[in-house]
Amino acid sequence: MAIAVVGSLGLDTIQTPAGRAVEVLGGSAAYFALAARHFIPVSLVAVVGSDFPAEARGALEHPDLDLSGIEVRDGKTFRWEGVYSKDMNTRETLRTELNVFEEFRPRLHDRLRSFTDVFLANIDPVLQREVLDQLKHPRLVLCDTMNYWIHGKRKELLEILKRVRILLINEEEARELTGESLMHKAARAILTLGPEIAVIKQGEHGAFLQSRDLYFTCPAVPIESVIDPTGAGDTFAGGFFGALARMERVTDRTLRAAVVYGCVMASFTVEDFGVLGLARVQRPEILRRADQVMEMTRFSLDNTARLLR
Amino acid sequence: MAIAVVGSLGLDTIQTPAGRAVEVLGGSAAYFALAARHFIPVSLVAVVGSDFPAEARGALEHPDLDLSGIEVRDGKTFRWEGVYSKDMNTRETLRTELNVFEEFRPRLHDRLRSFTDVFLANIDPVLQREVLDQLKHPRLVLCDTMNYWIHGKRKELLEILKRVRILLINEEEARELTGESLMHKAARAILTLGPEIAVIKQGEHGAFLQSRDLYFTCPAVPIESVIDPTGAGDTFAGGFFGALARMERVTDRTLRAAVVYGCVMASFTVEDFGVLGLARVQRPEILRRADQVMEMTRFSLDNTARLLR
Repeated sequence: MAIAVVGSLGLDTIQTPAGRAVEVLGGSAAYFALAARHFIPVSLVAVVGSDFPAEARGALEHPDLDLSGIEVRDGKTFRWEGVYSKDMNTRETLRTELNVFEEFRPRLHDRLRSFTDVFLANIDPVLQREVLDQLKHPRLVLCDTMNYWIHGKRKELLEILKRVRILLINEEEARELTGESLMHKAARAILTLGPEIAVIKQGEHGAFLQSRDLYFTCPAVPIESVIDPTGAGDTFAGGFFGALARMERVTDRTLRAAVVYGCVMASFTVEDFGVLGLARVQRPEILRRADQVMEMTRFSLDNTARLLR
Repeated sequence: MAIAVVGSLGLDTIQTPAGRAVEVLGGSAAYFALAARHFIPVSLVAVVGSDFPAEARGALEHPDLDLSGIEVRDGKTFRWEGVYSKDMNTRETLRTELNVFEEFRPRLHDRLRSFTDVFLANIDPVLQREVLDQLKHPRLVLCDTMNYWIHGKRKELLEILKRVRILLINEEEARELTGESLMHKAARAILTLGPEIAVIKQGEHGAFLQSRDLYFTCPAVPIESVIDPTGAGDTFAGGFFGALARMERVTDRTLRAAVVYGCVMASFTVEDFGVLGLARVQRPEILRRADQVMEMTRFSLDNTARLLR
């Protein structure tokens, strides 16, 4: 039992009100894999340049992470630099160097083609389609995207959506994709585009999941000190998809628990720069925060019906 | 057993993408009372002009609403006119005519002075203090405010906060009052200002409650068609405070249920213009939506610990 992620690996330079990190490991595949590995082994499909530092690779070396699908190409690794606003709700990209990522054409080796559970991280929908075309028996495919593709490759994105089981996007993207400003209506509109499940990431407000029969909301775990929000969405994806794939069956019960684990894992990422917060997490802390979400949301209406006049 | 609200009554002219309503009953006291009356009798303390229409007064006539504290003064009733943005998340005030509300000095008649459970709606903190000074045995006092007072009468507001048990405000107000951008930190900062409980209204994201020992989040009930958000916050206050006062004891259990009823009642208000949606609500629908919130938030982590590697 294992899952695969096809996404980016890169070196991020991040400035937030809490400080600055220079050329640290980043990319959707890194955050996703480091979160999902707590639940299930993960194979990474990505590309790095010949300059990819041993330290960055070392952060991904773990018995539950298969790095054999990481292609090393002559040239420089993808780099991104951004600066966050004071409240960290917005960020400005100062620099994007695609480098070897510009020529990325994911080729899955034979064993990877047999994977049934795959996360298509936020990359060009044309590449997402090429990955899908290589899978022999796709069963549980989760897809992420962003405004850039919603505007620039809408047709290709809509084609992909017909072939994925779950779409994971944030509120702004859901609005732009569907034209609906009410979030639960946007989520239901997504279900008409192909996916049977839509998961909407809401940042500090948590996330919610919409399927035909289920509408489940989960708050974010409150964090004492938010240091760097980079990668929180991909970390959510890792916790959500790792837990869901590990539970094997897709039911209302497993979907609810998977969303909770997504929110829990994301909370570790924002506590430090890059993958540092996520990388040091231990099992007991994950369980403790999942219990915390339960405490934050549980209530009883026993005997309250009699309160009503 | 009964509660009192001291707030505004007025005639609102409201334009939203869904249409327009002209000079309909509005004001914090109206929304609060029409929500809270489902749980407990409510006495209103407010002022209207001699032009207050019989139809508006009629909307408040109910066996559980005591209107004897509504002062009728010579002159015109408070009027407000506003227009909402396309997504209804922001609104522009086109006109505010304070009229008789400008001279409002709440005077509680003797029976009202014995009330222990009082909602001080969003009015000048100087008036809120005058109300508090008239109460013989205040027990459960809930206070609302707005940016206008946070900036313009900060000192007077801070004095009031030392004397109220629960502060209810929205996210933007919480940020401006405390200077904290993380909401749960803003809520905890409020607890250092006097209140033992802070309730933060988050609009389409629901609400959360923070006390010394409890952090409880509740999502908004998803609404098919949002017609007019006016009064949703005061309706939340009515559902929350009505249920809490009715349960008599302030415990983690009663606070959780009260927040749920606050979110439930607010969902009826946004479904139609002014108080129309709220005024026609029946008991079974309230119970159905409270169950719906339970369905939206419940999850089980049974056996999920074994998922973790």
